[in-house]
Amino acid sequence: MEKNHQLFSHIYNSFKKQNFLTLIEAQLEQVEEGKVVISCKRKESLTQQQGFLHGGVVTTVADVACGYAALTTMPEDFEVLTVEFKINLMRPATSEQIIATGQVINSGKRLIVTEGTVVNGDNGKVIAKMIATMIPAKQNP
Amino acid sequence: MEKNHQLFSHIYNSFKKQNFLTLIEAQLEQVEEGKVVISCKRKESLTQQQGFLHGGVVTTVADVACGYAALTTMPEDFEVLTVEFKINLMRPATSEQIIATGQVINSGKRLIVTEGTVVNGDNGKVIAKMIATMIPAKQNP
Amino acid sequence: MEKNHQLFSHIYNSFKKQNFLTLIEAQLEQVEEGKVVISCKRKESLTQQQGFLHGGVVTTVADVACGYAALTTMPEDFEVLTVEFKINLMRPATSEQIIATGQVINSGKRLIVTEGTVVNGDNGKVIAKMIATMIPAKQNP
Amino acid sequence: MEKNHQLFSHIYNSFKKQNFLTLIEAQLEQVEEGKVVISCKRKESLTQQQGFLHGGVVTTVADVACGYAALTTMPEDFEVLTVEFKINLMRPATSEQIIATGQVINSGKRLIVTEGTVVNGDNGKVIAKMIATMIPAKQNP
Repeated sequence: MEKNHQLFSHIYNSFKKQNFLTLIEAQLEQVEEGKVVISCKRKESLTQQQGFLHGGVVTTVADVACGYAALTTMPEDFEVLTVEFKINLMRPATSEQIIATGQVINSGKRLIVTEGTVVNGDNGKVIAKMIATMIPAKQNP
Repeated sequence: MEKNHQLFSHIYNSFKKQNFLTLIEAQLEQVEEGKVVISCKRKESLTQQQGFLHGGVVTTVADVACGYAALTTMPEDFEVLTVEFKINLMRPATSEQIIATGQVINSGKRLIVTEGTVVNGDNGKVIAKMIATMIPAKQNP
Repeated sequence: MEKNHQLFSHIYNSFKKQNFLTLIEAQLEQVEEGKVVISCKRKESLTQQQGFLHGGVVTTVADVACGYAALTTMPEDFEVLTVEFKINLMRPATSEQIIATGQVINSGKRLIVTEGTVVNGDNGKVIAKMIATMIPAKQNP
Repeated sequence: MEKNHQLFSHIYNSFKKQNFLTLIEAQLEQVEEGKVVISCKRKESLTQQQGFLHGGVVTTVADVACGYAALTTMPEDFEVLTVEFKINLMRPATSEQIIATGQVINSGKRLIVTEGTVVNGDNGKVIAKMIATMIPAKQNP
């Protein structure tokens, strides 16, 4: 419990430094070892031509959830960078809120492989599925 | 020439309906059959923790360039949706502007495969490479 | 039960027509709606330079399991083609047998999204993870 | 010229140790720094249900071409492993021979990003496009 609280603070501190996440009003919802949940509410400014949350927003929250899931498995003075990811966008984000969960599949010495799932907040239907590869990087002092 | 001008207007009309592209101030730069170029300037609100343009922004402009490249090969009353894409983020977006080019690799009856490249505006170095699969959809009247 | 038996026969008939699967001695292990399991034994002829099963074999069985998982959700006179897939190869195939499971994540009208997992037969550790996009095609009569 | 000759020998020696490449009778065609070309002939034993070269074969030669392209940028005592790749299969391999070209897009200290293209040998039409991420590994002595 205490450990999860510390992990949350650690991730939250990094999260708050990402101005783009502030712009889209992404929220850090849950942090445990190997798993991070992020939510994002629909706003007019974040939509595509049909009025749904833009795929770029869906992708961003999935990638960020995956990256922070990887970061929970790293020592405190590390950060992670996204090497690459693949995402399938399966249905539009029709709800007022989306929930992105990132989970570590394999934490190797040199790379961390993660899986991301984004669901509609109202009905839980899967909007998008991601596999992402992360690389640890020593933070600048 | 005239044809490219019409294509530009067609794509521009759709582009302007995407509020999220207005939010990040993405600019439609160039449109020809099978190829679209989009730029985006670095702003504080679009950065990650190191002060560079966020990967979510890099990904968004790449995806949008690929989608509109696909759209240039469709009849006027169609739009395209992103089925899925894969992106490798190779270096940080260190310049004041990024340039994303989307190009059609294969335009099939049911799917369009596209390739996206994002470069730093100052030195032309490749930041990211994408392969994206697009699907045509009849526009609602 | 009876339904699964019919599904198994349906998939098995297609499986047997793929000479390449015979060459690598892939085995159809299990078929249910939305899920297919395939195994493949290590043989000298299927190895890479370190003596483990080649990544091309691991990838083939994952792709085939995903494709047939998609096929279980189609009418009998259809086949499916792989549009694209992404695979992360996380550890070598060190065991004498690998087990690939393909599962449907989303079965749309025009595309089926599937997920593949390949594990080492001895310890169950995940060798590879795939997301694959499949497209239905009417069989030639 | 001499350098390319040495590179060819270096790659060829590794190529010959991969039994699976012998099984499918893949041929190393061309090696230069950052680029490798591999061919593979259609044989009955390598086909899928329609009689074309199996997607698993197309994928294997693309992956191997990408891996060896990466290896040409490494010191002699290194090998490379495939971290992950994504491939779009755009049309069937209808010709008697396929040609796969792997090229390095970005050679970083820790990862090498490569691009693969597979074409039909007769008409040069693109069958498949790949982006693959490779990781260097010190060879066992």
